[in-house]
Amino acid sequence: MIDSMSDDVPPALAVFAGHRSVRFFRPEPLAAGDLDWIVEAGRRAPTDAQGHMYALLRITDTALRDHLATLCANQQHIREAAEFFVVCLDVYRLERLVALRGGEWGMRQRIALLYGATDATMVAQNMVVAAEALGYGTCYIGAVQNSTGLIAAALKLPEGVLPLYGLCIGVIDPVHYPPTVKPRLPRELCFFENSYPADFTDDQLESGYAAMSPKRDWYESLGLYFAKGGTMEKREPIMAHAWQQQGLEPD
Amino acid sequence: MIDSMSDDVPPALAVFAGHRSVRFFRPEPLAAGDLDWIVEAGRRAPTDAQGHMYALLRITDTALRDHLATLCANQQHIREAAEFFVVCLDVYRLERLVALRGGEWGMRQRIALLYGATDATMVAQNMVVAAEALGYGTCYIGAVQNSTGLIAAALKLPEGVLPLYGLCIGVIDPVHYPPTVKPRLPRELCFFENSYPADFTDDQLESGYAAMSPKRDWYESLGLYFAKGGTMEKREPIMAHAWQQQGLEPD
Repeated sequence: MIDSMSDDVPPALAVFAGHRSVRFFRPEPLAAGDLDWIVEAGRRAPTDAQGHMYALLRITDTALRDHLATLCANQQHIREAAEFFVVCLDVYRLERLVALRGGEWGMRQRIALLYGATDATMVAQNMVVAAEALGYGTCYIGAVQNSTGLIAAALKLPEGVLPLYGLCIGVIDPVHYPPTVKPRLPRELCFFENSYPADFTDDQLESGYAAMSPKRDWYESLGLYFAKGGTMEKREPIMAHAWQQQGLEPD
Repeated sequence: MIDSMSDDVPPALAVFAGHRSVRFFRPEPLAAGDLDWIVEAGRRAPTDAQGHMYALLRITDTALRDHLATLCANQQHIREAAEFFVVCLDVYRLERLVALRGGEWGMRQRIALLYGATDATMVAQNMVVAAEALGYGTCYIGAVQNSTGLIAAALKLPEGVLPLYGLCIGVIDPVHYPPTVKPRLPRELCFFENSYPADFTDDQLESGYAAMSPKRDWYESLGLYFAKGGTMEKREPIMAHAWQQQGLEPD
């Protein structure tokens, strides 16, 4: 059992072993043609029932990029990355395609939300791996969910399209990046065989904290995000509003 | 502008160009060690706020595998692939981790559903790319959503854990596979710049059908899945029940 990727990683998988999110970029564009290849890698992703339930918006307008950065916790790397995409789930286009053949739309909100989120993420993750394989740095922007409805409006998204997260792709600023990767929870806390464990023991959970706390206790960030009063709780009413606004609140 | 991946694809991206879902497998295990590398590639995926909101269940029990195949539209490749995983979103483990430090859980259902689905899919898609980079075939199983609640029960998933889809990985049976890839919607229907189009013209939508209909009209399958009375509509009450059962129905 391998606990983490080490020096003997097969060359075909080295890109995974080296992954880390990058938030400092040099002010340079991608090399000519590379963005097209990254997009093509995304387009080749699997798609549920061939539904293509995703839309990616490339933000090239500087004022718009700045506005979105402001809406996303003012994250400076959104402004500085060579490329910034807003990754959306999209069942609007599919509904239009069905209507063109005279079909009445049958997909409802819960299925649209989950299949759309997974379809979009297959595309985005392919783009991340492709960009990193070409030597670029990437960073997902979850803070889109601080302002989902406002971002949907700024991008003129119709009902059936919902922003999920942003994606920065750019030239890594090596000044900020020694080639270290971030820790992950132990495999045995995330991968199971045939059934979910009856429960986790405190020792098992502490092994998670130990793995994730090389410098300071992991709970310092975990609590700020996931405990009562934290970021994720604050995002729920924003998400509820956005689901309503984009016609995706389950009925 | 590249419209599809062609012979001059950069070697680092050839794995994306060659992707197609595989449903015929030879009755052979993966080569020794390869599954560990595939899992490690998954574990290295990005994770929102370091939440690791996913769980993967590897199904090695033959009777259970057969039962799950029966619940998933009786798809024979679930039985035949060397490996079969059920990919789940999981906020249960995270809640337990927060509780261990005395924190009260703050994340609510909508955010859990979408962040969990995206976290899980980053992991699964890394595994797909890694498996294909090692020469294996893969296939996502959306039909998990024909029986979400029953599958959750069969795998003893606690509240906060929801099956999203299955994932087959195995040795490709070359008898069934000339190396052709499936069509995709044109790039200009899925990737936009700065804003979503005001609307799609019929010509644009027909270009989608043309690209997706090399043999027969795409609507023949699209209608069965997405129109009124189709597969996706039938899955909505199943999903609603599963959200309730797993404590994820938004309040």
